[in-house]
Amino acid sequence: MTQGADRARLPAWLDPAGLDGLDPAQLGGLGDMSPGQFRAAAHATVDLLADYLEQVEDFAILPRVEPGALRARLPAEPPEDPEPIGAILADVPGLVEPNATHWQHPGFMAYFATTSSGPGILGEFVTAALGQNPMLWRTSPVGTELEQVVVGWLRRALGLPDAFDGLLTDTASTSSLIAIAAAREAAGLDAAARGLAGRPEIGAPVVYASEEAHSSIEKACMTLGLGRSACRRIATDDAYAMRVDALEAALAADRAAGRTPIAIVATIGTTSSTAVDPVPRIAEIAAREALWLHVDAAYGGAAALVPERRGLFAGWERADSIVVNPHKWFFTPLDASLLLSRRMPSLRAAFSLVPEYLRTLDHETPVHDFNEYQPQLGRRMRALKLWFLIRYFGVDGLRRRVDAHCRLAEQLAADVDADQDFERLAPVQFSTVCLRWRPAKLTGREEEPDVRARLDAANERLMAAVNATGEVFLSHTRLRDRFTIRVAIGNLRTEPRHVARAWALLQAEAARLGP
Amino acid sequence: MTQGADRARLPAWLDPAGLDGLDPAQLGGLGDMSPGQFRAAAHATVDLLADYLEQVEDFAILPRVEPGALRARLPAEPPEDPEPIGAILADVPGLVEPNATHWQHPGFMAYFATTSSGPGILGEFVTAALGQNPMLWRTSPVGTELEQVVVGWLRRALGLPDAFDGLLTDTASTSSLIAIAAAREAAGLDAAARGLAGRPEIGAPVVYASEEAHSSIEKACMTLGLGRSACRRIATDDAYAMRVDALEAALAADRAAGRTPIAIVATIGTTSSTAVDPVPRIAEIAAREALWLHVDAAYGGAAALVPERRGLFAGWERADSIVVNPHKWFFTPLDASLLLSRRMPSLRAAFSLVPEYLRTLDHETPVHDFNEYQPQLGRRMRALKLWFLIRYFGVDGLRRRVDAHCRLAEQLAADVDADQDFERLAPVQFSTVCLRWRPAKLTGREEEPDVRARLDAANERLMAAVNATGEVFLSHTRLRDRFTIRVAIGNLRTEPRHVARAWALLQAEAARLGP
Repeated sequence: MTQGADRARLPAWLDPAGLDGLDPAQLGGLGDMSPGQFRAAAHATVDLLADYLEQVEDFAILPRVEPGALRARLPAEPPEDPEPIGAILADVPGLVEPNATHWQHPGFMAYFATTSSGPGILGEFVTAALGQNPMLWRTSPVGTELEQVVVGWLRRALGLPDAFDGLLTDTASTSSLIAIAAAREAAGLDAAARGLAGRPEIGAPVVYASEEAHSSIEKACMTLGLGRSACRRIATDDAYAMRVDALEAALAADRAAGRTPIAIVATIGTTSSTAVDPVPRIAEIAAREALWLHVDAAYGGAAALVPERRGLFAGWERADSIVVNPHKWFFTPLDASLLLSRRMPSLRAAFSLVPEYLRTLDHETPVHDFNEYQPQLGRRMRALKLWFLIRYFGVDGLRRRVDAHCRLAEQLAADVDADQDFERLAPVQFSTVCLRWRPAKLTGREEEPDVRARLDAANERLMAAVNATGEVFLSHTRLRDRFTIRVAIGNLRTEPRHVARAWALLQAEAARLGP
Repeated sequence: MTQGADRARLPAWLDPAGLDGLDPAQLGGLGDMSPGQFRAAAHATVDLLADYLEQVEDFAILPRVEPGALRARLPAEPPEDPEPIGAILADVPGLVEPNATHWQHPGFMAYFATTSSGPGILGEFVTAALGQNPMLWRTSPVGTELEQVVVGWLRRALGLPDAFDGLLTDTASTSSLIAIAAAREAAGLDAAARGLAGRPEIGAPVVYASEEAHSSIEKACMTLGLGRSACRRIATDDAYAMRVDALEAALAADRAAGRTPIAIVATIGTTSSTAVDPVPRIAEIAAREALWLHVDAAYGGAAALVPERRGLFAGWERADSIVVNPHKWFFTPLDASLLLSRRMPSLRAAFSLVPEYLRTLDHETPVHDFNEYQPQLGRRMRALKLWFLIRYFGVDGLRRRVDAHCRLAEQLAADVDADQDFERLAPVQFSTVCLRWRPAKLTGREEEPDVRARLDAANERLMAAVNATGEVFLSHTRLRDRFTIRVAIGNLRTEPRHVARAWALLQAEAARLGP
């Protein structure tokens, strides 16, 4: 199936033509790859991947491919007969890399980065081979207890009190869903047992989040049977942070209408502009109204490693639950999201279900069975890669890297502010800069629809031109209905020169496009 | 942190004492592990893992450790300073392996196996290094299109028609949750938008599944706001298959009570006894009642690879959705669950949500953005490992392996039937044998509570004794309230001698325990 591998890196013995007769899959055996073949193929894979990571900067970050082009090159019918492992591995440089969006490229500054750090990759490799399933303590003592240890390490590194315990999930979407499901139970709705339909005695539940909160909150409401309509989007202030007066008004209106507020989601580091909701005041309201407070710090949380930046997190220690994603700014390969809560029994009430075939007979010592706290039964061992990388970098190493990214963003913000043809659209509190091109010649009154439309179109063209260079990948959002370019720094491999290059490209492409 | 590594396999240069000064994490650098160090550490990891897989049979499958013992050995405080990678890797044989439940051991016949096959492990390794996130086509063309290809390959290999499309999720729990969420939309409840609470115009939704259906169905109902009470457990016949008369009666009763049936879940290969519900008749009822039919073949589905065994799957082509888990009997490392559906727009209606920061600007050609079909936004690239292993084994190779496991189970069933002191408790249609010890001397009238209790206790002791040998790991269930030992064959590394050994141990330990 190999087509056009442009990097011939496979040792000769792994050449497809050289493997005939060596392969148990071809010899009629019914087991796995032989241990010797696994060892050899895995060493070859190491070199493929080390070469890739060494050379990743040579790729255009966004592959220059049309949708459907790769699919069209592959057979619709699955192969009936075995292929040699050498042929399969040759497709990594031949087909996979040329069609990948290079998240590991140091110029990847779109969305929020997910870095597969070296120790994280090794952790995933070990995890795959051991094949643990820490759904029960019994099915993986090491998976279960390393997760308890790593959850504790992260909690302490973030400066949160002992009252928080937690678990590792796949994504912030799942972590927030679990938090809101727990809020449903904590509110006394008994939704896990009785559901929400056909119960005239309960008012429609409502979850509050700012209009800048992540889409995963609305999606959790959809999934949980609350509905998108249950997600009350609260207006934000000039810095895109939740307006407490608007929250109070919404709460009062919903109470008056007989609805049942159950949770407030405060964000520390929103997706569009990394805004910080006023958590201390929101926590007071949550306490007064007996609502579950969930803090979404999926991206921003890592900055709590840095004592000087902990002011951004004031009040989060009062939350009922907090999500921070190691697979964002903790350099952990997908997937790993940390959900912390001081009310673990509510999580368990939302998800515990123990059929006979999952009862273990060794309950003389109480054990922690993680499946009781999440929607899924089976689960990957996500703790090992974190155990590897926290030890490899050390908390101080992680802290210095996160801080360095923030400083890079602050420098870029200063550069943007100093350029009369560019405009910064949001405060820079973490490592993301929101900006737009606003050439002096194009500037009119913003309120004129024509001016706004021309600025939007110009910035869309500018971003496309910068991304087309392949050296940098930026994404966009809308802030106050303005097309906004985001430069999100947080990739472990990004150095000062890459941020400087992104800024130089924005300036150069803007000059080239003209006003 | 290494304590008592009993296998010294690290090359000298990776020795903790030898790395000082080599480690960028220790030199004040702020990037990742250097490419050279990654290459070297990854090669060392290959040897650790190849040794592990080569020697896995030497381990006791269940580690002889007390709950909490590992955790007690690890510091509660995270390390402030970096550790050399050599020290971290030394803990794989030193701490991780001795505390793992060895799912890769050929004597692992508990639950349903999850084999990390050689090509599957390599696929995970590549996946970790590339760090793709195929949430959008744009964020990973290769992840998106390989997933489309592999979904098509699996569908064809299973003999299902073109009308089915689908996606890869983490677990069957999530796949079934998505299916039931789609059923909610297909039933016109508009639950994603409006939720289920405070709507007197809709009756309480009901989902039908047999009393032997997997707990994930009830858990999905809990999560989705339908509640456990919405999961109507239908009685089963002597073979533990859903009784269609009982289904009809339940449907009629719920309609009469003003409730709203939305879905029927039929299982092909239940967890306790691998029973097969009468899908053709259930499909007729679903069609007549306009209900979503979801088929849970998470474990059993792989047997559809074998044309001679496809009779077990009669009618499943009429389903609205089907789940089959590659991480069960397709030798794929955790996690990978295949959800197929002929009604993808209903899945999309349940989960699609596209905020501005996820809009891509390249929609001239329509693209497939997988996040719109699942509860999470971010997602791992799960297709690559399947692409690797389907090609490595070939569909014929997978088919012969699955068929061999079924034959091993049939042989064991014959052995059990031929032993007057043992009793088989369920038909063997796949690769799992349900049995109990029933020594002639203990046999009385089953109805006498004393006899039943003594049989249960004797079988619990027997299973514990067999598991204590470390050579075999079996799990249990209850069938008609009888303690039942399950021998679940399906591990790629299990050979005939391992099944024979399991049976010999059951007989020998029974003889040793006495009647």
